[in-house]
Amino acid sequence: MSKNHKTSNANLNRISASEFKKSEKFNTIIVLDGVRSLHNVGSVFRTADAFLIEAIYLCGLTGTPPNKEIEKTALGATNSVEWVYFKKTEDAIISLKNKGYKIYAVEQAEQKTWLNNVNYNNENIALVFGNEVYGVEQPIINMCNEVIEIPQLGTKHSLNISVSVGVVLWQLLGKKINVE
Amino acid sequence: MSKNHKTSNANLNRISASEFKKSEKFNTIIVLDGVRSLHNVGSVFRTADAFLIEAIYLCGLTGTPPNKEIEKTALGATNSVEWVYFKKTEDAIISLKNKGYKIYAVEQAEQKTWLNNVNYNNENIALVFGNEVYGVEQPIINMCNEVIEIPQLGTKHSLNISVSVGVVLWQLLGKKINVE
Repeated sequence: MSKNHKTSNANLNRISASEFKKSEKFNTIIVLDGVRSLHNVGSVFRTADAFLIEAIYLCGLTGTPPNKEIEKTALGATNSVEWVYFKKTEDAIISLKNKGYKIYAVEQAEQKTWLNNVNYNNENIALVFGNEVYGVEQPIINMCNEVIEIPQLGTKHSLNISVSVGVVLWQLLGKKINVE
Repeated sequence: MSKNHKTSNANLNRISASEFKKSEKFNTIIVLDGVRSLHNVGSVFRTADAFLIEAIYLCGLTGTPPNKEIEKTALGATNSVEWVYFKKTEDAIISLKNKGYKIYAVEQAEQKTWLNNVNYNNENIALVFGNEVYGVEQPIINMCNEVIEIPQLGTKHSLNISVSVGVVLWQLLGKKINVE
């Protein structure tokens, strides 16, 4: 494989921010419920850009663009991905319900669907991710339609939140992405 | 769903670090080739813990435990997951080849297998992830058996490296994790 050259950034032929805005998106909205780390917020923007997500709802103490710390990991994805700020996460959920979205909390709970068993059929869905320490708050879980849990086999309680967003989006959307 | 209680950390019944060491792992080794961000390194440890990965090889300028910045995101996973430091990434690859591992670079390259099309059958594999800006260096790619590329549809060139590790591990191992 000595001639397998890396693709230059120019040759990746990525779309522009204005093309992104006009592109057909996955009908998926990410809700961040009190995510404290601005690095995590920026990283979620970058992942949402890569997987053509409809929007990110930033709620409560979650930081919002423009912000230098968010940009360190977003690297400009705040210019392509739509976002809305809600002071109360409850209001974000009510707004999504009114628009007909099915709402999943990504958490560890008594009744849950394991991520391995989740299938996505292009319906309108929202995925709620919570604070680094407290997770998605119980009153918010009570408002959600279902809980998705990522199976984890090791010693720690949970994955980093930006990693969780990547893993869940890949499970749902990876199979839908056309590759040659 | 008003009675769907979150699972307390105690009720998650996670294994201890010594139980982790004795557990049967996935035959998967993660190689970090010059990863600059200590937050990324810590986050990779946490993901490797969650998915019972055999070891992490930290190469070149990649930071190593014990390190306060790594711990901020590893949250103790440096105590469970095995790691080895190699000054030269080439030496890590040679060591893996000698042990019979199939080696995949996770990169963007002319010849690649799209992540959607990768299947894992419990063979010994190593996954090489590169520097935040430069990716996996071309001489290292030349030593690998194959390149895996994560399809990305948006404006940016790549995902955050700790997110990439999560997404690739989930694609390979998610289906292998038994859930009830």
